[in-house]
Amino acid sequence: MAFLGIDLGGTKLAFALFSTEGFILHKEVHELNGRTGKQVGGLIADQISTFLHSDQFKNDKITSVGISVPGISHKKNNTVWAPNIPGWEAYPLYDEIKAITNALPLMIESDRTCYILGEMWKGAAQGCKNAVFLAIGTGIGAGIVVDGHVLNGANGIAGSAGWMVMEGDFKEAYKSCGCLECHASGNGIARMAQNIIQERKRYNGVFKNKPVEKITSQDVFTAYEVGDWIAKKVVNAAIVYWGRAIANMVSLLNPEKIILGGGVFGPAQRFIPVIREEAFKWAQPISMKNVSIDVSALGSDAGIYGAGFLALEATKLDHQ
Amino acid sequence: MAFLGIDLGGTKLAFALFSTEGFILHKEVHELNGRTGKQVGGLIADQISTFLHSDQFKNDKITSVGISVPGISHKKNNTVWAPNIPGWEAYPLYDEIKAITNALPLMIESDRTCYILGEMWKGAAQGCKNAVFLAIGTGIGAGIVVDGHVLNGANGIAGSAGWMVMEGDFKEAYKSCGCLECHASGNGIARMAQNIIQERKRYNGVFKNKPVEKITSQDVFTAYEVGDWIAKKVVNAAIVYWGRAIANMVSLLNPEKIILGGGVFGPAQRFIPVIREEAFKWAQPISMKNVSIDVSALGSDAGIYGAGFLALEATKLDHQ
Repeated sequence: MAFLGIDLGGTKLAFALFSTEGFILHKEVHELNGRTGKQVGGLIADQISTFLHSDQFKNDKITSVGISVPGISHKKNNTVWAPNIPGWEAYPLYDEIKAITNALPLMIESDRTCYILGEMWKGAAQGCKNAVFLAIGTGIGAGIVVDGHVLNGANGIAGSAGWMVMEGDFKEAYKSCGCLECHASGNGIARMAQNIIQERKRYNGVFKNKPVEKITSQDVFTAYEVGDWIAKKVVNAAIVYWGRAIANMVSLLNPEKIILGGGVFGPAQRFIPVIREEAFKWAQPISMKNVSIDVSALGSDAGIYGAGFLALEATKLDHQ
Repeated sequence: MAFLGIDLGGTKLAFALFSTEGFILHKEVHELNGRTGKQVGGLIADQISTFLHSDQFKNDKITSVGISVPGISHKKNNTVWAPNIPGWEAYPLYDEIKAITNALPLMIESDRTCYILGEMWKGAAQGCKNAVFLAIGTGIGAGIVVDGHVLNGANGIAGSAGWMVMEGDFKEAYKSCGCLECHASGNGIARMAQNIIQERKRYNGVFKNKPVEKITSQDVFTAYEVGDWIAKKVVNAAIVYWGRAIANMVSLLNPEKIILGGGVFGPAQRFIPVIREEAFKWAQPISMKNVSIDVSALGSDAGIYGAGFLALEATKLDHQ
């Protein structure tokens, strides 16, 4: 018996076959290669069929499927909204997969929910009943579990942490991405550095050999290491904002753990002591004293482990 | 058959006898009159005994008890922390009440939790599965229900909304009460006005006939009505902060409803359109479009209705 966990990203699609004990028996990654709409659904369906029917996996009886999607899984109408996949405004993934799997138990959740479920199952939040995964990549979102329950919210979009208020001056840019995300996501960090360079008529600093619009957050972190003043300004602001974001979630949610993950953690891991210091300034002091702030233990595998956990849960639900 | 709901406040103790349909059959309020520690526990116990044994209520067979406390109900060790009642740092209320009621089903929750439960049962949040009661009185706290579950957090202190970050400049005062609470609670509003007056060597405005330290938030709201500039400055800042606090909770929790209650709502009800406008600037736009912001329907009875609901739930738990 085995479970199939699937992690759909904006550019990649990962599959992992899990044993009943939660070990990965087999893993493979496919590039989306510019696929859109139904082509992405088709790729997922084809690969699931391969797992179900090929000789290679004939001894692993797959009993359920879990899928992590880069967006929102709407349970009310069984559709997925995934902003980075064209044609996935309301994609009927659940029904498509149910149809080709002979109605195997299936659960689909947002990537941020899967990250925290993965960490609770096999990562840094094992044993926790109240935990948050703050995913800081191109954007910012939080997967939240409270008292053992995933926090979905009324429209399935709880955890939109990138929209939190971090400072008093409202800027027009916040309308499209939220205050925290504008300053402290991967895209936000890159754009803040780009803005500073563009505002200067003559610029001769560390970024001078790269077209301004091509500067990434990774470039900014590299420039920080060599003491570039623009990188320091942008990264130091992000550190402060991450600390405040953690403070807000600690005060409101009183979690045992906040796990920092996503592409930015990564390079920003070394700042955790300073981030914690900023959080301590603002947060409810008892909650803050009791929370532990850790980096993701599963890294880029958090989503696939979360999907594996969904598959396990799907089996249980089906037996209720 | 009837349920007993008890709402303990910092100065008062209210009892209500509920019918099985949730109607109040009888209500009475006792002043604490400066009682502390065990005297408060004794008053609660004596009154419960009266309800259980007096001739007046002999036809209402009381089958369970729910209690709202002005602080935190710690389930792990069955104690109550109530900062405004001296001697209630870790008061064994649960065991005391169990002992005198012949072990009737009993539930004890924090007041902010009871407020939202009361509103969901009989008030402005009926039919909601995701709702927040933002209680703005002397302090600020939030009772939060997500996907039908009360959000307690790891140490029972989730909903400490008064500690949310609302602006970039950290001030020492935030260390003792939190950024939002310092500016926008009843005490915060009073103190902000007091501070402005004290900073001025000569003051001849609307508050001139009152000792500065006696100015209350109610005074500030009254002064706002006659156009006093200090009151306008303080109240307008509070409006902005309430809007931002709502925005954060909408983005993180995606609730169907946010209910504004506590002593300040009250006089601040008329500002809800402006508060909503501020929230719209910052919050995740889809969540914001889908949330309704209302004033408490139960007012000062929210706690006692919540306690009644606890009593009803306690009966169910006991039959599991």
